[in-house]
Parts: sequence; C-alpha cells; structure tokens
Amino acid sequence: MTNTPFLDRINGPADLKGFADRDLAALSDELRQEVIQAVSQTGGHLGSSLGVVELSVAIHAVFDTPRDKLIWDVGHQCYPHKILTGRRDRINTLRQERGLSGFTKRSESEYDPFGAAHSSTSISAALGFTVGRDMGQPTGDAIAVIGDGSISAGMAYEAMNNAGAEGRRLFVILNDNEMSIAPPVGAMSKYLSGLYASPFGEMQKMAEGFEAALPGPLRDHARRARQLVTGATQGGSGTLFEELGFSYVGPIDGHDMSQLLPVLRAVRTRAVGPVLIHVCTVKGKGYAPAENSADKYHGVSKFDVASGTQNKSRPNAPSYTKVFGEALLKEAEDDPSIVAVTAAMPSGTGVNIMADRYRNRVFDVGIAEQHGVTFAAGMAASGLKPFCAIYSTFLQRGYDQIVHDVALQNLPVRFAIDRAGLVGADGATHAGAFDIGYLAALPNMVVMAAGDEAELMHMVRTSAAYDEGPSAFRYPRGEGEGVLMPERGEILEIGKGRIVEDGEDVAVLSFGGHLGECRKAVELLKQQGLNPTLADARFAKPLDTNMLRQLVKSHKALVTVEQGSRGGFGAMVLHELANARLLDGSCQVRTMTLPDRFIDQASPDAMYMDAGMTAVDIAAMAAEALGRKVTDETLQIG
Amino acid sequence: MTNTPFLDRINGPADLKGFADRDLAALSDELRQEVIQAVSQTGGHLGSSLGVVELSVAIHAVFDTPRDKLIWDVGHQCYPHKILTGRRDRINTLRQERGLSGFTKRSESEYDPFGAAHSSTSISAALGFTVGRDMGQPTGDAIAVIGDGSISAGMAYEAMNNAGAEGRRLFVILNDNEMSIAPPVGAMSKYLSGLYASPFGEMQKMAEGFEAALPGPLRDHARRARQLVTGATQGGSGTLFEELGFSYVGPIDGHDMSQLLPVLRAVRTRAVGPVLIHVCTVKGKGYAPAENSADKYHGVSKFDVASGTQNKSRPNAPSYTKVFGEALLKEAEDDPSIVAVTAAMPSGTGVNIMADRYRNRVFDVGIAEQHGVTFAAGMAASGLKPFCAIYSTFLQRGYDQIVHDVALQNLPVRFAIDRAGLVGADGATHAGAFDIGYLAALPNMVVMAAGDEAELMHMVRTSAAYDEGPSAFRYPRGEGEGVLMPERGEILEIGKGRIVEDGEDVAVLSFGGHLGECRKAVELLKQQGLNPTLADARFAKPLDTNMLRQLVKSHKALVTVEQGSRGGFGAMVLHELANARLLDGSCQVRTMTLPDRFIDQASPDAMYMDAGMTAVDIAAMAAEALGRKVTDETLQIG
Repeated sequence: MTNTPFLDRINGPADLKGFADRDLAALSDELRQEVIQAVSQTGGHLGSSLGVVELSVAIHAVFDTPRDKLIWDVGHQCYPHKILTGRRDRINTLRQERGLSGFTKRSESEYDPFGAAHSSTSISAALGFTVGRDMGQPTGDAIAVIGDGSISAGMAYEAMNNAGAEGRRLFVILNDNEMSIAPPVGAMSKYLSGLYASPFGEMQKMAEGFEAALPGPLRDHARRARQLVTGATQGGSGTLFEELGFSYVGPIDGHDMSQLLPVLRAVRTRAVGPVLIHVCTVKGKGYAPAENSADKYHGVSKFDVASGTQNKSRPNAPSYTKVFGEALLKEAEDDPSIVAVTAAMPSGTGVNIMADRYRNRVFDVGIAEQHGVTFAAGMAASGLKPFCAIYSTFLQRGYDQIVHDVALQNLPVRFAIDRAGLVGADGATHAGAFDIGYLAALPNMVVMAAGDEAELMHMVRTSAAYDEGPSAFRYPRGEGEGVLMPERGEILEIGKGRIVEDGEDVAVLSFGGHLGECRKAVELLKQQGLNPTLADARFAKPLDTNMLRQLVKSHKALVTVEQGSRGGFGAMVLHELANARLLDGSCQVRTMTLPDRFIDQASPDAMYMDAGMTAVDIAAMAAEALGRKVTDETLQIG
Repeated sequence: MTNTPFLDRINGPADLKGFADRDLAALSDELRQEVIQAVSQTGGHLGSSLGVVELSVAIHAVFDTPRDKLIWDVGHQCYPHKILTGRRDRINTLRQERGLSGFTKRSESEYDPFGAAHSSTSISAALGFTVGRDMGQPTGDAIAVIGDGSISAGMAYEAMNNAGAEGRRLFVILNDNEMSIAPPVGAMSKYLSGLYASPFGEMQKMAEGFEAALPGPLRDHARRARQLVTGATQGGSGTLFEELGFSYVGPIDGHDMSQLLPVLRAVRTRAVGPVLIHVCTVKGKGYAPAENSADKYHGVSKFDVASGTQNKSRPNAPSYTKVFGEALLKEAEDDPSIVAVTAAMPSGTGVNIMADRYRNRVFDVGIAEQHGVTFAAGMAASGLKPFCAIYSTFLQRGYDQIVHDVALQNLPVRFAIDRAGLVGADGATHAGAFDIGYLAALPNMVVMAAGDEAELMHMVRTSAAYDEGPSAFRYPRGEGEGVLMPERGEILEIGKGRIVEDGEDVAVLSFGGHLGECRKAVELLKQQGLNPTLADARFAKPLDTNMLRQLVKSHKALVTVEQGSRGGFGAMVLHELANARLLDGSCQVRTMTLPDRFIDQASPDAMYMDAGMTAVDIAAMAAEALGRKVTDETLQIG
C-alpha cells in the first residue's frame, strides 16, 4: 500500500474542514489510489467511483453531512464516499457476504440517508428531504448527484418538473461523463453534449450577475469560470433545466478542485431555489486501463493494478444471457419482423448480439422502461414481433405499461426477463423476486421460466412463434447448467410441462432456474429410499392442469419450487388445486419460495442457502410433506 | 335533435375529403351539438371531448386514417372521433354495459389503433408504429394527440427523448388547454404558459423559413401564422421540444379551422422527422355550463342540456373517498408531521379535504406516480409521515419505487389505495385488480383492505399510528355500506382479523370491499339450514395466522373472497395453510377472486355478476366446498 498521509487524517467528513484547498486535491489523489486498490481485490463498479473522487471530497468538504443529505443516484459510485464516511476499514469487504454493500444503504451508515441501486430516484428523494427540512425536521440541505444517463429517465424529469415548481432550495449535481453502462442514447444526451460544445457567447451574457457574486479566487483564476450560467428563464431562451425552473451553473470540470470548491461554496451560500450544477467528469479517471476501456470499467472483476488485467473466472457453461442473445439472433435471422428493445442494457441483456448483425432492428431506448414497454406494444400493434429484454427487477418500472398497453390489448410483446431470482453481489436491490406473481396475475399473459439453458432456447423460439398475445420467459443470472445444447430451440406447446423423472411417492415440481437444485434434492430423496418424481412446469401460466392433476392424484406429496416470492407459481398451483377440489389431503402440498424478507448480497448459492432453498431444504420439505421426520444430518449431499 | 345536414353525410373519415374547408367548420358545430346531446344522456368525459371537436375533424380530414394511426392519449376525449369513425349510431351507449367504451379501444374499431385510458402512453405507441411503417408494415403516419397534463409525465418525456433521437417522421399534437382533471401543476405547465404568453420576436425570426413554405391561404390569412416556429436547435435557444429533437410548430388556435387545416397539411407534406404541433384549446369549448365550471365538466353525470344541471343520484352513504379524506384530515389535525401526496388527483382521492385546511402539507406532483412514491419515501426518511393517495390502477406506475425505495428501505409511507376492485363505467383499464398481490409479495409491507367505511376510518388511523414500516389500505370506488360511523377510527392491531359472525360449518373469510356481499351470502347459507361463520381478515399481510388456524380447525370449509386477481389474499392464505400443514382435507378451501380475464364496463354490480362474484356465487362456492350440490334455483336472495 502506498503512503496516504492525508487520507490517514480522515475519520469522517468533519475532518475535511481543516484542510487547505490544495490539500484536498492531494487527498483526492490518495483516495483514488485507495479505491483502485480496494476494487482490485473485490471487483465492483470502479469506473463510476473513479469519476467522482474529487466531487466526493468537494461535497463533503463544503456541505455539512450527515445533517445535509447527500444522495448518490444509483449509488454504485459511492466507494470514495464510503471511505470518507467512516467505512475505510471495511472497504475491502465491498459486495462480499456480510460486507459493505456496493451501493448506498440506509442501514449501513447515517451518511447514506437514502439508499439506491436502481437509477433516477435521487432528485425525488432529495425533494422529500427538503420538504422535511422546511417543515422543521432535523435535516439540512439535500444534494442529489445524478449521472447524465440517469437524468434522462422519466422519473428524473418528473422530479425536476415538481422541484422546479416547488421552488425549494435544493441541489442537483449533474455528473456528466457521457457514459452510463453503455454510451448514453436519446435526445437529452445530444443536448447535454451541445451545452458544453456550443459557443458560450449567449450564455456568458446571462452569467454576469452570478459571476460577480463568486468569491475572488474563482473569479480571478478558474479557467472556466467565465462559462458559468445562471439566472431566470427568459421566454424559452435558457437551458432546458432553467425552463424547468432550476438555476443552472456550469459546466465545470469535475476533476478540478479549483472549480469545484468555489462553485459549491457559492451555490451553498447563495441558492434560494433549486440549482442544477453541471459537472463534467471522466469515467475511470486517473486509472489508464479504465479510461481506455470501452465500458470505462463499469463493473469489473478482481484485477491486477499494474496491468489492469481482470481476473475473470473461466465459465463452465455459457451464460443464460449469451444463450438468450444467440437464440434471439437465430430467430431474427429467420423472421425479419423480429425486433428487440433494451433499456440502456444492450450487452447486459445480450441483445447486442442481434444488434451486431441487425443494427436497425435493436432499439436502445435509454433508462426508460415505461416508454420501452409501450414502444414495444406499439411495434407489436404495427405487426412487428418485439422482444423486450429487461431484467426482472427493472421490469417493475414498466409494470403499468405491461398491464395497460400489453396485457389489456393482448398484444404479442415478448418479455425476456434476465436476472430472475437472487443475483449475487448486487444484493437485494437487484433481486428478481416478484415478476412471476406480478405477471401471472395478468389475463392474456403467458409466463414461462427456463429450467436450464437448453430450455431457454426453446422458450425464445416458443415466444417468437407465439403471436396470439403477450408472453414472458424468465431465467437466472450467470452460467447455465452445462447441458447439451440443441442447434436450435423447439417450439413448446403452450401450457405444457414435462416430467423429468418419473417416480411415485413425492413429486418435486420446479418452475425455472432451481431445476438443478431440485435434481439434487431428488437424488437426496432417493438416498432416503424414496422414489420421487421430478417435474418441470415450464409454464406458470397457463398452468399444465392435466399434469398437475396427475401429480396430485398419483403422489402423496407435492412440493413446488421457484426462485420468486409468495404469490407466484406456487400460488397459482394452490389456487388451481383448491378450486378443482384437489386439496383433499390425499396429497400434501408445500410451496417453496423466497422467504418474506430481503436477502443481503453474497454469492447466489450463499443467498439461496440464506433463503432456505438448497437441495437439502427442498428434500427436507418433501420428506416432511410425506410425514417423515428429517434432520439436516439425515439429508446430506452424498 | 337538431338538424345535422353535414354530419349526416359522414359514414367515415373518407367522407371528409369531399368537404370544403368552411364546411368542415360547420360540420364541427354539428358534431359538438351531437356530443353534448349524447353525453347528456350517458354521462362521461364531456369537457375533454368538446375541446377537441375541431381538432378531430381536422386530423381526419387531413390524414389518411385508419392507415395513418391516430392515437389519442388517455382516450377520454374520443367522443367526436368515435362519431366520425362509424360509431355515431352507438354513441348513446357510451360507457354503458355492452356499449361503446368511454376510451379508445382496439377491439372496438380499426380507427382505434392503440387503446388507452391511463395517461402519457401515446407518443411511445406512435413511435412504435413509425418503426413498423419504416420496416415495411402496412401502416402510414402516426399521430399522437396528448394533453398538456399528460405530456408532463415522465413516460411522455422518455418517449420524446427517444423519438427525438430516432429522428423518424412522427406527429405529436400537444393539446394545450391548461387543464387536466385538476389545473395542471409543475414547471412544465408554467413553461408552456410562457411559450404563448411571451413576445414572439425571437421565435419569429427562426420561423421565417417555415412560414415561407406554408401554403398561401395560411400565410396570407391565418391570424397567428406569424407565430409559427420551427427549425433546428441552436445552442439551447429553441423550445424545450426542439432541444429534445423535435421541430416545433405553434402555438395555434385549436378551434380555428383556418389555422388547423393549413398547418396540418403543411406538416404532413413537409415533415421528415418528429414534429410537435402546439394547439391551444379550451376544455368544454362551445358549451357554456362546461366552460364556466371549475373542472370544465371533466367527468359528468347525465345532465339537462338547456341548464347544464347534472342529474346526480342521491347517495345513500358517504363515498369511501370522502370518508378517507375526512379521516385523513382528522389525523393531520392531530399530527403536524402528516403530509399527503397525490398524482394530479386531489379531489378524486379526497386529499383536497386536507388541502383546504393545510395547503402546504398536501403535494400534487402532477401525473408522476414514479416520482410521487419516491418523493413520499424521501419525506418519510426525513421524519415526516406521508400518505400517498393513488388509485390502485395508477399505483402500478410506481411499482418499482414501492419495491426499491419504500419496502426495501422499510420506510413508513402510507398508501391509500382508492378504486380497488372493479370500478364501473371506466371499465377494465381502471380496475384495481392487482394491488393485493403486487403489494403482499413485498417484505415489510402491511396490506389492509376495508370491509366498510368505518373500517376505512380505522385503517387510516392505524396507518397514521404505524411508523415501523410501509403500510397500504385499499377500498372500493363509490358509496360505503351505510354503517354507523365512529367519531374517529380506532388503531387496529397489526395482523389481526375479526370474526363478524360466529358459526360452525363453513367460514366465509372476506378481505376488503366484498364484505357486504359476503354478508348476503351468509344469509343465503342460513336459508339453506347452514350455520356459517363470517370473518373479516382486515390484513392480507401480515395474515392473522391464529384466526386462520382456528377457522380451518373448526370448519369443514373455508372460502376466501377478495376484489382482486389470483395471487393476492387467497394465495397468501393458501401458502400459509399449505406450509403450516393445515391443508389436510379436513377443511376444504376455496378462493374467490376476479376471473382471469378483463371485465368490460358496466355498473360495478353487473361487473361483479359478470365476474361470478355475487352473494349467490359465494354461497354456491361455500356449499360446494361442503359437498352440497347447489343450483342457482336453490340459492336465491330472499
């Protein structure tokens, strides 16, 4: 570890107040090295954190946290902030089991007043704090720091629209690095580029009043001070932010303390209403391998600091994401009416594979799930066959659009739902826990889940072929099971499950990504002298009622297993059995779901262990349903 | 009925092509009278429809519907459009059972290419159609007509951001009447006012190129033609729409055919990319009682055309909305930290009652459910006690925010969920069918439903008192049951139901608004010689597991009843019973939920009959669960 004399003096943000401005710059350099060191050992969101090192120092130096509420949008850029706010000694536990969260988290620190992980929530939350302050709650100013990708989401616009009208003192720092996970898209992005590319003549005139008010050092020395802009909107001639009621300051260089500090001090002293401070940063700043990589080291594995080489573990099987992407491409080759929609996640969802071949048939709408879903519905109404690829947890953002625009109109939009179930290091905020229930409740919706990567291929093909209404298929994060892969998926019969292994006393009925764990459970039950059946439901809707009837008629117990919360697949099974008069006690039914609590980050396996959903748990539940007394000792993986 | 020589010549939009421009204006006058006549007999969204009479005629006269796709945002302003597109003979069935929908609806007409009812979806859908057109689908231009309230929602911004970047030929008509259901709020609204209030000097210079291209009649005669603006964005100096990549035309007078027709013809001829046409209209135009009323006759009952007097039926009991509003006010009087949030529905939700007393503690965020929920979460994090009052169907728009910002952080936001269950004339799009399931699936969430209006008072008080985490309470549209009302609600024990009537053979377990129907069912069962129990669960989460256990232990059958879809309360009961080993056949369980299809508009009672959820249906299900054969004849309300 390098020498860190300045950083060693920081136990909390209060210690920053004693630093001279030039020492804050030196501190930032140490902080940057510390972040690089830490993430090289844990993996994580390096690029975003490196981009806000100076900004983190400057905000904590100028504002009065934790009384002032600093809210990082998304929160994945919070590593420097965590080091500065008393968590330096635990920074090497980032994203690990029982370690620091990779995002801001209320339960972790009073310096995290509002946690995040999904994008574009910070301005809304900050506005809430300002109302609290104005109504006498013990809270100071609120500062939202939001990226240029996140601010293009509708929710951020709604918040600015409201904040601009409310007129309360509120600070929004736009961290503009022209890069979210992928390069940002949309008109807003072009507009922001234009703001700092265009000549400053017009804006400069308006800035005079504000400039004069700035403290001497900035007025005299800062290179870009002349570019500061503020003032009231004049008949549509200000920036977009001013048109929404904000004062606008910037753009300034977010790596230059001699700009950051005086500007933040000035706005802190003078602001009466909402202010947007436009700060330009470089994602990955100060670490060459990050600055030079295409994704700016957005999310990285452990890496070697000297070379930047990431230590990626060798996969045993292709990832579900890649299987989806390649299967989609195959369907797209066959049918020119197939199109795809992603919400700012082309490579995360695998639609980049189709985009490489068919640039014009893949639409990245930006962080805009509401629009993305209805845009897909519009394309479906025009006769196209859209696949809408959005992670389970983010699809929650488009729920009303799924109900109102897709299901109600019975339009054949295909939802490819990656990251279903527990996802590992990203933790509870990214878990795909609720989609089975929130989709299966909808009339007209076909809901599938893939038991392995070959099943996923079948489901992509099935969805492509099914044009009578909407369909959805979910699959987990990470690698497949390593099963034999077909050349191309088969078209499954809608609403038909399959018996994987035929037995007679207890049936394990799996829906989706836990099939592998159910296989292991079945082996454990065999070791107990039982003759279990393993079935793969494939569909939560429509249910395979024939198979279900057969299973309960011919078994003494049935256990449903799914990587989702109560109210999903197991609930659909129970409803069906209850109302078909099949819950007569001759077959004992149990439902294994995620427990009724949020599960903290760990490896997916460890999270499922925490959730009580291992093979042993499944086997124990099956044995219990049969009336056998079981203990962990009698059920051990052989 | 007055004489309608022009309207009588219209069988479809194609007939408009043969009209001289001046005759289209005369036709509009006839159409307006026809709309007034029709709505006077059916009730409905009169004000919005009157505001777009000329616009409806002009669009159909200039564009080539149904090949060109005309998409009305929200769709409640579609009555003139329906009359023009072959539905004149059924216009007096608007919003009635088996009649025309009060909104646009794909299944009703090829002239409704994309249905609606919720706001702000039209630009997304229209962009989808333009992609279809550009990829060879048999569809022409796409035209979205969206109000100034609707365009302020995040979803519309997301769509403009995407459409501006895509650059495809697309028409967005901003129908600016400075009025949604309530006066619009937010910075965008002020901005739009500024656009037409400000001097046109600056904008006029930019408009010259476009003006020169306009056809002679407009250039020479139209009063406001000089005010037209278009052209590329120049360094942030254009309108907000231009900054998002749209050409901007307007504002023009939306009741003046001599402006509407030439402008629409000009943009249709010349547009290459996305164009926003800013049209100013008056809600309720041409009918004095509407123009003079505060809400511009947004939604009206049947009325007398001459006087404008609405024929409102006299209520038998206070509405749930009013009971909520008054109960909230009582709590707010007691506790100054109580605040309320509405998304553009102050009177619809009843929070106007609190606002009348405490103006500064009630926040109308506009049509912005995503922001509204997280804004409430921010206020809760600051120490305030927010009630977030959003209809069940619209709360779907804030689902991710409920998961990510409220439930995950266990913040005590109170959700007041009006319009739960089936809602009557507004039909399937407004049904509150899914909230029980999508909320009960969330860890930390308390989910209540009111069995009658006194229960609602208890639940408002309970929510106000419960500060350990989020809570929600749902209640139906319309009048209460007429029960005796307490002076103030009681604080209920969290997770505790109540036995309403103690019996022994079959238990009817109601959750929420169907309690009255369950009472009737219990009476029917008594007439059959049975001794039924009636219980009110009050909580879907946490469940009253003790009461549940007692009910199944002491009864031979249990029927759960809820005004919601599968996956909700009944599912939670079944999960609980299954995993507590209580589904052993000794008590037969049935779940009554909304069926797995969307229910078309009718009276709520008729809709529940359609849904198979009358007292007779409940009693029949209970009798069947007991093994009794029942027919409709043996079960009749006495």
